Amino acid sequence: MQLAEYLTNLEDRVDSLRLKIAVIGLGYVGLPTAIAFYNAGFKVVGIDVSSIVIDRLKNRSSQITEEVGMEIPHGPRWELTTEYENYIQNCDLAIVCVPTPVDEKHLPDVSAIKSALDSIIKSINNDSKTVIILESTVQPGTTRTCIQLSTDKYPESKEKILMAYCPERVSPGEGGYGVEDVPRVIGSEDANLTRILSKLYENITSGGVIPVSSIEVAEASKLVENAQRDIDLAFSNELAILLPRLGLDVEEVLSAASTKWNFHRHTPGIGVGGHCIPIDPHYYIEIAKRNGVTSAMSPAARKLNSMMPAFSADEVIKLCGERPPKKVLILGFSYKPNVSDARETPVMSLIDELLQRGVTDILVWDPHIENPELPEQASSVSDPYHQLGVDCFIIATAHDEVKELNWNKLRESSLNPRIFDGRRCLPPKMFIDGGWTYHAIGRPWKWKN
Amino acid sequence: MQLAEYLTNLEDRVDSLRLKIAVIGLGYVGLPTAIAFYNAGFKVVGIDVSSIVIDRLKNRSSQITEEVGMEIPHGPRWELTTEYENYIQNCDLAIVCVPTPVDEKHLPDVSAIKSALDSIIKSINNDSKTVIILESTVQPGTTRTCIQLSTDKYPESKEKILMAYCPERVSPGEGGYGVEDVPRVIGSEDANLTRILSKLYENITSGGVIPVSSIEVAEASKLVENAQRDIDLAFSNELAILLPRLGLDVEEVLSAASTKWNFHRHTPGIGVGGHCIPIDPHYYIEIAKRNGVTSAMSPAARKLNSMMPAFSADEVIKLCGERPPKKVLILGFSYKPNVSDARETPVMSLIDELLQRGVTDILVWDPHIENPELPEQASSVSDPYHQLGVDCFIIATAHDEVKELNWNKLRESSLNPRIFDGRRCLPPKMFIDGGWTYHAIGRPWKWKN
Repeated sequence: MQLAEYLTNLEDRVDSLRLKIAVIGLGYVGLPTAIAFYNAGFKVVGIDVSSIVIDRLKNRSSQITEEVGMEIPHGPRWELTTEYENYIQNCDLAIVCVPTPVDEKHLPDVSAIKSALDSIIKSINNDSKTVIILESTVQPGTTRTCIQLSTDKYPESKEKILMAYCPERVSPGEGGYGVEDVPRVIGSEDANLTRILSKLYENITSGGVIPVSSIEVAEASKLVENAQRDIDLAFSNELAILLPRLGLDVEEVLSAASTKWNFHRHTPGIGVGGHCIPIDPHYYIEIAKRNGVTSAMSPAARKLNSMMPAFSADEVIKLCGERPPKKVLILGFSYKPNVSDARETPVMSLIDELLQRGVTDILVWDPHIENPELPEQASSVSDPYHQLGVDCFIIATAHDEVKELNWNKLRESSLNPRIFDGRRCLPPKMFIDGGWTYHAIGRPWKWKN
Repeated sequence: MQLAEYLTNLEDRVDSLRLKIAVIGLGYVGLPTAIAFYNAGFKVVGIDVSSIVIDRLKNRSSQITEEVGMEIPHGPRWELTTEYENYIQNCDLAIVCVPTPVDEKHLPDVSAIKSALDSIIKSINNDSKTVIILESTVQPGTTRTCIQLSTDKYPESKEKILMAYCPERVSPGEGGYGVEDVPRVIGSEDANLTRILSKLYENITSGGVIPVSSIEVAEASKLVENAQRDIDLAFSNELAILLPRLGLDVEEVLSAASTKWNFHRHTPGIGVGGHCIPIDPHYYIEIAKRNGVTSAMSPAARKLNSMMPAFSADEVIKLCGERPPKKVLILGFSYKPNVSDARETPVMSLIDELLQRGVTDILVWDPHIENPELPEQASSVSDPYHQLGVDCFIIATAHDEVKELNWNKLRESSLNPRIFDGRRCLPPKMFIDGGWTYHAIGRPWKWKN
């Protein structure tokens, strides 16, 4: 089929919701995306390499959908599978939402993309074309290069593939920034295809779709967004280290500064986490280096944000009179509030740093995670109130459930109640008036005035 | 007079506009401030060490007031002088708006503040109190320390001085960000005084006044604002260096990224200038260092922003076929659009870098500056159109007058018309379609797609 003819047909099918869409990788991005396309009226096949994931979804159980308030579909338009072969050939589009982590040297690891693309492209044996849309965060050039690598293995697929890139932008746990809300950027190898795919995505988001001139512009836009965010957070963390030394509370200074029209405020904390901010800047740093540019900003930001757990551990030791507390209870484990996502959580590093400083007994309570994967020396508890002999409480994640704890009850369970607010999520006054020995990230030890 | 009694009296006088206010330093900040207080109904004495400045103002001539659309007052409530002695003693308040530069080692130079404070404090010989408000950007602690140094010299003044800090935030040339518009932050040594001074400043700005708990919080807020801005601009400049190497236009990528709700967009350029951004971060870096914290973010930003003129000069050479053009005409000299302010303008560094690369004839046209202070080898022209044999035009400042040039006419004055848009202020298409050899900061040399 000629491209023009194919695209006319594709547009018709987008308009009349007669597409069958495969979504590959059913995690925080892929699952809501698959459901959103189903909800819009399309036929959807959800594919994941993990049979555990697929089985759970078939049983209609998922923490991800619970957190974003979606329902797992069932019915003839909804299929779930670990197989590509018999499914991809019947699909018009394959949307790839697999993880793009870094390896132990902080270098980009796109093996999940390569593997998904191989499986997709191997499975194409129809006469039409298949549009592959990558949503994972990558370096500019990756979509094109990786698809080429796969089609090189299956040369007959070459003319059957059309490629596009549409970076995911969801922010789980933050109301209003889900798959159905966020504005999307999309670029493809053909301006007309980009236009048609924009219409397609308009079906799932109220935030609008922004077509750009190329796949690479779309790829770069996402990388730049997250590199900037890492830098923003790093500066606020740097201030949380410096300002207390001047007798100043970082929160008060940031509040004052943010009354300026072009100041953007960020809250310092024990560190940054999740699948984006600690990882994507390494993709940025690496591609810069490979192209002869040594990034000045991103390595500085990475270094700063990575040291926050160690800095926080030092603050906890100081709060406990410069001696390692025997027993600490860490409140929250996931990397951000109100989600169960613990990928790259800075709490893991905080635990390591506390252990290194001689803390022997580390308890973790997270109402969103039943059995967090902890180091051996730490253990999770399901009840924050009845832990005897806690020397120091640490607010590590500003979950609503953490903020709404009964602090009087907690205080009473401790002989010498100390608390370190690593997220600046509760008013100091509440703790100070409540008889706690209190400290928080970015707060001075002594008030100069 | 007791403090409480004094403050009651002061508040009365603020409310009834019966204050006499000295404003020290009649530059971009002080002059509009003095006029704003005059316009609000107060008696104002404008003091400047420069008799040239005072004489000009007495002749009611000033480029500063022209640019901000203010009129220099005349009448019994308005005085201008180079002397402190006979004036300060009749004033209730002294507002200090003197420059705070860095020395050749990039270390803070607060000598103008010290000298102004000495002059003020020496001149106080009334029985009441005088409120000294510093507006210059300083490190947290400077207001208190410098006033103390001065009162140590004149111990009898100690109990006559009250101190406050209210950072200036004007952005000349940007509509809506003048003295009469911007929100203000204020801190003083007494909460009641802060409240009263907030009322005072409410008289001159529609942007609101935000009282903070101390002088130091107010000082820090300003430093943090400008350190952040330098970082923001540095990242956009880093992208302007990197993205073209990937075949991408920084402006297109930033446009796409800025459709994300928490992305903040900044325009890359030939460098940053003015009295704030290239200087204040050094105040931040120095106070961090002095307090045992090595800033990671600000030195990286400073380094990046400082190299932009050299990077731009390289781009110009490349545009001219890797050979230094004989004659260039630089359009714009001030550091930002639509003002005559050339303090720390990156155009100066650009000229140096061009000279170092063998450019022999450098012309500068700036419709806002009659006689810019140029290096010997460069000269200013009053007419951009009739310069023969220009090998390359460089847009250095995005003045409206630059953007509105007759580009066809300009092109015709050159045999081989080349243009480098160092501010991304005009559409590439206009130049490409218009027969120019065109390049711009952050634009790829070759399009990959």
